[in-house]
Amino acid sequence: MMCTRSSWAARSPALRRSSHDGCTTHTLHPSTRSLPGYHPGGRVEGVGGSIRRGQNTVKLHGYFRSSTSYRLRIALELKGLGYENVPVNLLASEQKGEAFTSRNPFGSVPMLEADGRDRAQSMALLEWLDEAYPDKPLMPSDIEARYTVRELTYAIATELHAPLNLPVLKYLKNEYSQSQEAIDAWYRHWLARTLEPVEARLAQLDTGDFLLDAPGLFETVLLPQVYNARRFKYDVDAHGHIARIEAACLALPAFQHAHPDNQPDNPENSA
Amino acid sequence: MMCTRSSWAARSPALRRSSHDGCTTHTLHPSTRSLPGYHPGGRVEGVGGSIRRGQNTVKLHGYFRSSTSYRLRIALELKGLGYENVPVNLLASEQKGEAFTSRNPFGSVPMLEADGRDRAQSMALLEWLDEAYPDKPLMPSDIEARYTVRELTYAIATELHAPLNLPVLKYLKNEYSQSQEAIDAWYRHWLARTLEPVEARLAQLDTGDFLLDAPGLFETVLLPQVYNARRFKYDVDAHGHIARIEAACLALPAFQHAHPDNQPDNPENSA
Repeated sequence: MMCTRSSWAARSPALRRSSHDGCTTHTLHPSTRSLPGYHPGGRVEGVGGSIRRGQNTVKLHGYFRSSTSYRLRIALELKGLGYENVPVNLLASEQKGEAFTSRNPFGSVPMLEADGRDRAQSMALLEWLDEAYPDKPLMPSDIEARYTVRELTYAIATELHAPLNLPVLKYLKNEYSQSQEAIDAWYRHWLARTLEPVEARLAQLDTGDFLLDAPGLFETVLLPQVYNARRFKYDVDAHGHIARIEAACLALPAFQHAHPDNQPDNPENSA
Repeated sequence: MMCTRSSWAARSPALRRSSHDGCTTHTLHPSTRSLPGYHPGGRVEGVGGSIRRGQNTVKLHGYFRSSTSYRLRIALELKGLGYENVPVNLLASEQKGEAFTSRNPFGSVPMLEADGRDRAQSMALLEWLDEAYPDKPLMPSDIEARYTVRELTYAIATELHAPLNLPVLKYLKNEYSQSQEAIDAWYRHWLARTLEPVEARLAQLDTGDFLLDAPGLFETVLLPQVYNARRFKYDVDAHGHIARIEAACLALPAFQHAHPDNQPDNPENSA
């Protein structure tokens, strides 16, 4: 996780490739300081207390192809929050090392280092971000509309993500000796099982370019899953509403900046 | 899903067996009326608008052993919200019939019929309940404490639930021809993979009988998973903090009322 800092002119509306030195910094708040809070291996201080925000550099520990890291990148971009990108090499199992698990016992990315605390679990992170940084909200304020967003978002996050996640796919290969073809069938089976009802609900809601007026929590969670679906040759275009939302999002700089293709730890960017 | 109504003296502190006629009604608000809102197969009206609440009977469409239905039962009990229990027989695939999927395209339980709308996806439902019915909150108001609750809750809901859910287990058996022994090993593997870090985080937080001062969202999601873990002979007691929280919850009437053993559609209750 060696990391040098470089500035990224990421706030311009046009897509810019991030720097290729393995670390990207785009900090809205240039003053950093020693922060209260979390001590690896020890107690979490300040749980239940107030937080100090807006004065420190947010660090996103993630991996370019991790769909949950991709969620966080989208959310931070949509909210206009600067962050430092700290790549964690999942292929080298860096997330399972003691240096990482003492800070995040789940041994998973993303981990967000912000306001003096290390935070894990992408859905908890997204909900926290929207509460702690209420500007440019990921969800509307109306309770019914929030339910509409969360129903579809959590369908993807709770039903679909885990069966398609790398540890499960590895188990199928290593413990059950399944072929790549059988694993691909598994992958597409669960995609269909959740994306079909998501599409049906979007049709009931008669959605346009986005679930609501602008991209938010749902699009933040949908797009990484659709990216994976296309990698596995799933016919995303069979779902008209989902494909339209995907296209509308990919036209936006926030989603372009967050895309796996444009991350410094994507090997294709180190050529 | 035939259902007759009977009253249930469920608000008493002592555990009462629910009635055995296949349907339990405990209604806080006796007046029901025609409600605006959801039209199966059509548009959802009122999305983004205000809701009318507190005047209609909430109906929980669920299954006694479904862990996500169990979550909803606990939440409704903790919040003191009366509801009518409408059993959906998953073994007879009732949730996949047109009558059900036209209302809930996910074809899943729980489905909550409340305030003129059919709602699915248990985590979206729990978040909605806490926003729409803010009395007896499932989460504290402090943003940092809410993150603490959600990190552990969503670890279980997003990493652990899906790989252990019935459709996945059926796939392993039917498509991959795995033995029950191999499926049991899978089950315990994913339990350990999430419950171990949950236990580690609880130890860092030095928790007592509950994650915070009283049971809430975390316990609502934890207890059904622990119930399943014990059914699969997983050594829950190896996790001291989790086992202590389990015991403290099971001593409370809300958790007892919600328990699968005490549901009218549990076949053991129809003897």
